[in-house]
Amino acid sequence: MTQHTSRLCKGYFTKKESDGPLNSLKSDEAASGPKQGPTFQDGQRRVDYVLTYHIQKPRSFRRKTSHFGDYRILRSLRRSLSMMRGRDTPPPKEDPEVAAHKHRLDYHEDDKRFRQTEFEDNLREMGLELEKDEGNKIPGIGFLKIHAPWNVLCREAEFMKLKMPTKKVCTPMLKQRINLFIRKVTAPLHPKVEPNRAQNVKHLSHPFSREKQHLFDLSDRESFFDSKTRASIVSTIDLKFDLLKMTITGITSLLGNGVYTAAYPLHDGDVDSMGPEANDRKILYEEWASYSVFYKYQPIGLIRKYFGEKIGLYFAWLGVYTQMLIPAAIVGAIVFLYGCATVDNDIPSMEICDPRNNITMCPLCDRACSYWKLKTACGTARASHLFDNPATVFFSIFMALWAAMFMEHWKRRQMRLNYIWDLTGFEEEEGHHRAEYEIQVMQKTLKKQDMSPKVNLSLFHEVEGHLLLSPLQVGVTFAVVFGVILYRISIRAALHMSSNPTARTNIRATVKGTAAVINLVIIIIMDEVYGALARWLTLLEVPKTDKSFEERLIIKTFVLKFANAFSPIVYLAFFRGRMVGRPGDYLYVIGSYRMEECAHAGCLMELCIQLCITMLGKQLIQNNLFEIGIPKIKKLIRRRKSDMDSQQQEDYNMTLQRHEKDHFLGPFVGLSPEYMEMIIQFGMVTLFVASFPLAPLFALLNNIIEIRLDAKKFVTEVRRPIAGSAKDIGIWYNLLRGLSKVAVIVNAFVISFTSDFIPRLVYQYMYSPDGSMHGFVNHTLSYFNVSDFQPGTAPLQPMHLGYEVQICRYKDYRETPWSNTPYDLSKEFWAILACRLAFVVVFQNVVMLMSDFVDWLIPDIPKDISLQIHKEKILMVELFMKEEEGKKLLRDSHAKQSPLQPRSRPASHTPSNC
Amino acid sequence: MTQHTSRLCKGYFTKKESDGPLNSLKSDEAASGPKQGPTFQDGQRRVDYVLTYHIQKPRSFRRKTSHFGDYRILRSLRRSLSMMRGRDTPPPKEDPEVAAHKHRLDYHEDDKRFRQTEFEDNLREMGLELEKDEGNKIPGIGFLKIHAPWNVLCREAEFMKLKMPTKKVCTPMLKQRINLFIRKVTAPLHPKVEPNRAQNVKHLSHPFSREKQHLFDLSDRESFFDSKTRASIVSTIDLKFDLLKMTITGITSLLGNGVYTAAYPLHDGDVDSMGPEANDRKILYEEWASYSVFYKYQPIGLIRKYFGEKIGLYFAWLGVYTQMLIPAAIVGAIVFLYGCATVDNDIPSMEICDPRNNITMCPLCDRACSYWKLKTACGTARASHLFDNPATVFFSIFMALWAAMFMEHWKRRQMRLNYIWDLTGFEEEEGHHRAEYEIQVMQKTLKKQDMSPKVNLSLFHEVEGHLLLSPLQVGVTFAVVFGVILYRISIRAALHMSSNPTARTNIRATVKGTAAVINLVIIIIMDEVYGALARWLTLLEVPKTDKSFEERLIIKTFVLKFANAFSPIVYLAFFRGRMVGRPGDYLYVIGSYRMEECAHAGCLMELCIQLCITMLGKQLIQNNLFEIGIPKIKKLIRRRKSDMDSQQQEDYNMTLQRHEKDHFLGPFVGLSPEYMEMIIQFGMVTLFVASFPLAPLFALLNNIIEIRLDAKKFVTEVRRPIAGSAKDIGIWYNLLRGLSKVAVIVNAFVISFTSDFIPRLVYQYMYSPDGSMHGFVNHTLSYFNVSDFQPGTAPLQPMHLGYEVQICRYKDYRETPWSNTPYDLSKEFWAILACRLAFVVVFQNVVMLMSDFVDWLIPDIPKDISLQIHKEKILMVELFMKEEEGKKLLRDSHAKQSPLQPRSRPASHTPSNC
Repeated sequence: MTQHTSRLCKGYFTKKESDGPLNSLKSDEAASGPKQGPTFQDGQRRVDYVLTYHIQKPRSFRRKTSHFGDYRILRSLRRSLSMMRGRDTPPPKEDPEVAAHKHRLDYHEDDKRFRQTEFEDNLREMGLELEKDEGNKIPGIGFLKIHAPWNVLCREAEFMKLKMPTKKVCTPMLKQRINLFIRKVTAPLHPKVEPNRAQNVKHLSHPFSREKQHLFDLSDRESFFDSKTRASIVSTIDLKFDLLKMTITGITSLLGNGVYTAAYPLHDGDVDSMGPEANDRKILYEEWASYSVFYKYQPIGLIRKYFGEKIGLYFAWLGVYTQMLIPAAIVGAIVFLYGCATVDNDIPSMEICDPRNNITMCPLCDRACSYWKLKTACGTARASHLFDNPATVFFSIFMALWAAMFMEHWKRRQMRLNYIWDLTGFEEEEGHHRAEYEIQVMQKTLKKQDMSPKVNLSLFHEVEGHLLLSPLQVGVTFAVVFGVILYRISIRAALHMSSNPTARTNIRATVKGTAAVINLVIIIIMDEVYGALARWLTLLEVPKTDKSFEERLIIKTFVLKFANAFSPIVYLAFFRGRMVGRPGDYLYVIGSYRMEECAHAGCLMELCIQLCITMLGKQLIQNNLFEIGIPKIKKLIRRRKSDMDSQQQEDYNMTLQRHEKDHFLGPFVGLSPEYMEMIIQFGMVTLFVASFPLAPLFALLNNIIEIRLDAKKFVTEVRRPIAGSAKDIGIWYNLLRGLSKVAVIVNAFVISFTSDFIPRLVYQYMYSPDGSMHGFVNHTLSYFNVSDFQPGTAPLQPMHLGYEVQICRYKDYRETPWSNTPYDLSKEFWAILACRLAFVVVFQNVVMLMSDFVDWLIPDIPKDISLQIHKEKILMVELFMKEEEGKKLLRDSHAKQSPLQPRSRPASHTPSNC
Repeated sequence: MTQHTSRLCKGYFTKKESDGPLNSLKSDEAASGPKQGPTFQDGQRRVDYVLTYHIQKPRSFRRKTSHFGDYRILRSLRRSLSMMRGRDTPPPKEDPEVAAHKHRLDYHEDDKRFRQTEFEDNLREMGLELEKDEGNKIPGIGFLKIHAPWNVLCREAEFMKLKMPTKKVCTPMLKQRINLFIRKVTAPLHPKVEPNRAQNVKHLSHPFSREKQHLFDLSDRESFFDSKTRASIVSTIDLKFDLLKMTITGITSLLGNGVYTAAYPLHDGDVDSMGPEANDRKILYEEWASYSVFYKYQPIGLIRKYFGEKIGLYFAWLGVYTQMLIPAAIVGAIVFLYGCATVDNDIPSMEICDPRNNITMCPLCDRACSYWKLKTACGTARASHLFDNPATVFFSIFMALWAAMFMEHWKRRQMRLNYIWDLTGFEEEEGHHRAEYEIQVMQKTLKKQDMSPKVNLSLFHEVEGHLLLSPLQVGVTFAVVFGVILYRISIRAALHMSSNPTARTNIRATVKGTAAVINLVIIIIMDEVYGALARWLTLLEVPKTDKSFEERLIIKTFVLKFANAFSPIVYLAFFRGRMVGRPGDYLYVIGSYRMEECAHAGCLMELCIQLCITMLGKQLIQNNLFEIGIPKIKKLIRRRKSDMDSQQQEDYNMTLQRHEKDHFLGPFVGLSPEYMEMIIQFGMVTLFVASFPLAPLFALLNNIIEIRLDAKKFVTEVRRPIAGSAKDIGIWYNLLRGLSKVAVIVNAFVISFTSDFIPRLVYQYMYSPDGSMHGFVNHTLSYFNVSDFQPGTAPLQPMHLGYEVQICRYKDYRETPWSNTPYDLSKEFWAILACRLAFVVVFQNVVMLMSDFVDWLIPDIPKDISLQIHKEKILMVELFMKEEEGKKLLRDSHAKQSPLQPRSRPASHTPSNC
């Protein structure tokens, strides 16, 4: 079967290159000229990919043998040699254990060598060309440079169904008129990356196929596949062994076992190269990875061209997020300013601060505390108003819709990028199986063969994995939350119990400050611990494919880091000061620890401080210290180690080749940490926006730095990643969606339970005699008769205020001491509770409905894009139709002109031409 | 460019057919033998598609001319002829208007003819073969039979990237062991459709390509493309004119303008054919579309083979839904039985029925009503317990999770079908533009050219369409809801005001019965009205593509029909009896209409009756009357018209050819009505399951009939639909998801507000002296002092019960007459309200979380399927690798053997073979 095709193909290409219109095509060797990027020793063949490995120093005699010869003989020779040595010539002076160890080491080393050569043979069989560099510039490290020749590239591109630009061009009608206008206005905001690019021309793309190669513009073979594509083709070939043989000979397991130490494609050039030819890396460095261009759009097209779709999508997403934060930050700032402006008109805080309002408050704890005057809470009350005013309710609805808009906007942007990047119709790969999984499967199969057949319901089997570990996760998370709470309660208790009266008066300020800072430190430390924990948990699960491994790891890391970042905030917002009891009957947990209470005006103020410190601190420390500082320090240490001054270092650098320079860069560790950081920030921005309207502003400022910081990292500090293709941001999108859903509920609760919004409304419309807020403070305070103190709970210093107290007040809705059921929860309490809950129900459902409505209203695919896709489809159909007609004409004329041709069939009226 | 390919292809096929291993392939004509299905007059070429048109009777002379000649000359001739006639020979006796009309008619007819011939020319140009049948069997109807020859089929299959089975087979390892066991047990449940099918062999499939045809088993050209595929290929060609020329010459507009009256593929044969060769249609009729096999699985594979994926998915979905209803129906029946079993132990209804409990109740309305004894409500209270017991709460949680499970189960089933049907990787088409849209766009473009350029933000532009019509929709829906409510209130008021005392006592029974029945009738009538309204609204919008037209129509129909079906139920559940006021202060709306109150034990009982009547009635009437009865009547009428007795009719039928028989069948109107009916039923099952646990049982019984009914319709009563490809059920899935989300909220409200569940719990844990339900009835009743009746509201017959009443009771939580604030809402009211709302919040969020958890826990792709897809991918890669190797070997040997060949390139070490 295949014979026909192949014989034919041969004829086809032969014919074409000799007399076809494509005879400008030259073979690989002939197409010479100034090569871009690093090459083999011959200066011709481009290095597409590099593998590094350790060279065993003492056996330097072996190094020379590793050349392009017949490896099989050498290998077996070497193997038997090493076996012999291990057995026959034990070093006489070593004790047997050391010898055995050395033997194992030797054997291990030989095994590595063996597997290396086997792998290299495989690569060569696939048509790749290899060159080894075990030069002496970097001692102990060998480089295996891989070059993919043209035919291999073509073959793999066809297998991978890579969409490549065809010769057919069209002019996309993407909002032409507005675009031009906006482009003119925003010209300074655009990075200068593609000066001579024809704006309005787009090459239609089609999956590459050697049989349809007349469709493609192959005049410049060197640049038809760009460096990113070449590298990803080579890495696909590497992975194919994993896929095909399902054994442990693939590159993943070779890397895992240390047979190779690293595998990476090469950067395009130096960021500070002086040459006239600007490489993509240099352009990116200047127009993207620099703080001086912070106000500009990102050159997403170039980022994608250099790093591939996955990284391109990350930065596009980060850009959209940052852009969307601008309106949120502005509205948030306005809401905050509104709070500042109206603080003097806020009747409840005026009433609290009014010196005429001489209300005596009950002690806040048993024995140690004493009576106090309400007006001492004046400052807190005024500060609380900044964050607890009706504008906050509006803002949290606004932010819920903002989140929905953001998701929609991103979906559209993603669709647009998919169109521009020709990813429509691209199928996501499930990912190849992980080596660990394969090994486990093999073990399982062996076990199963011994055992009797068991009926296992696949559904439950699949679920098992998740369930095993869920309780563990939940347990750990809860332990942490309780740990933090206990820590706080005990700190409080210790301070409370202190006999020093001056210390006691400063209690609140001290605790607030230290608690938030200590919390922050704990959060940052635990963040690292949790990252490791999530990794370990995921490894235990042995997921099947790389993709599922990544997803599970992300989910676990997310749950843990999220719980870590938010548990103190959730505690502050919803649990603190809830069940404190009442004067004379305060609640105690675990012996003598009091539940913490809040300041008079609710916990919102403290929640706000906590959020502020967490956001600022986390971002400052993690960004500046971890992302900038530590790499700097590492570099410094490395330089110290190398015992060279900076001049020497520079000279040394000059002599290095590209693959050696890249070797010194850090490895690329994936996008997960970057995404994770942003998702946690998104949580901060949306979840507790009701209590801290400045969060979007802080996030915006952080992100402007973050983009350039990440850019710098990718361009200058890490090895070039293998370009990954992706249509979307995958699981991160689901996490974002989940967060914005949870945000609605959390905000509903913050507004109705943490803030005083509902009690105020209820007072105004149900209880206020004149419909104003006057008397609200009095309404929120219940009465307590000091004669009702339980024995041992009355304050030690009853005369603290200078007079004897008969009746004191406390913040709660309870019956009066003179009612039938003294100190029971009053009707007002239940009415307000019902209103709070009604608000939660209404808010949650209305906002969710509105979000869904926004979701439904805005089409996922922009209109112009869907129109354009449609048009391009028509163009492709036309193209093929023309081709068909051409074929038919040719066949007809052929049949007429050469009636003598022996093999041609008679021209029937239905020529079966396929 | 194309020349090379085509010349090559020619050579390729020539070579192959003469000496290749594929020389068993014959040309179209040669491959004769007994043809399956209907053919052209020559008995060879299969009829793949039929277009029908009206024949103008008086101009019978023209009919003869329409044969396969040079149409262009004839056409112009005919055209000028008709023009002349129209102008020159006006009939002298007609007045000018009639003449002009006739002229227009004539012109119109000629235009039709012209467009017909133009279209036919186009078809012929595309390679299709046509045959006309303007025979005399069915007067006035002409048939255009279309046959697609082999080469056309191949070409289009390649364009459409149809996945066809290759020769490569593999054995899917789909849960082998369990499968075998289950298969044995369930053998009688499986339809007997594929007796000799090799169970464990699957042909790998690959997009059809003429260049890769060696992959496919083309030994039997007749059956390589089955009748469904052939028809859909032809219909694609028809549609291509729409796509390519973007004018109004496509088949859609030709059908719309009446140029053709119908377009349909042909059925495979008669359902009652006696021949030994069983056609697929007959098998389907016997093994699927028959009530006698109601207990069997559906032959989904055969359905898909005969009707295509879209219809296959519908029945697969219906099957999964019906299957999933079985556990729900069982649990529902158990819950109902639990209610029946515990009705005698229910303390509150025991208390109500206890004759010692001599409670005097206040009148239920002003003046007309009088005092009554609580124990008269005994029956209602006991009946209510059937549906209002703790098991109901459990059942509604169960059903929420059931819905989530159902969605997941369906997703997995869909994935499995996608795999079996080779749809993985299939891309959904956006659908071609609708003719109406194109016309509007043309008009708009013309307008725009005159106007000054305007900046229009695309986002808002897109949104516009939705927004324009949303208020209209909402308005109509609300109008209906209020209409129903007003009707009910006025009926009630009229009955109340009736002076006949016996009538008044029967009020409740009368109203309940009539209201539900009248409601049902209104619902059924309005259903049809709304269907038309939705269609009209969607036509106003002028959606761009067929797909978006369908989606918009579905959404509109859904909203309207849903509002129609559920508004009386929602009113009963949440609004009725809510704001009735209290004795002496009843609320009135719009003058003298009282708000309706519920019976003593809440509205749940009435809600239940309403649901029961709606479900049973709707299903019985719509199924039996509309779907069975009306077609029968239509058939009867048609037979009457034809003036033949049944014997004659049968003889006549015998003489008819396939395309003529199919002509008499009804047109296929799409799946939307079928889906819509099921979705409304799904709503009934999930939304108010808390009030009617028997709903799943009713739905199950209905669906068992529904499946066979629909099957009968598709197999015997409508023309064969054009097979549509689809990966999923599209928008219906979203509607189902939306419904199951709404169901959670609705059930939360039904449990907490409509049922007495929460008040009972609150009483038991907060107020009951002994923790039992004793005294609950007393607790729910407030006191009313008859001296507090407003003037004119006291009952006319105060001595109705035979004694003078001082204090009466009414069902509400209000303060006593002797409290400080008489008749105000009491603390208990607020406490219970808070608990109700808390329940809603908790229930909604917990159930939603559980649903999401179920969603996340169960992987969308079954494990064995994902494994299998992975394996097949490996097999395909291996296949291509082998092919590559074969090519290489061949090329090498070629290069060695014929070094003299002038055009062969020198055998370099990198032969660029693509």
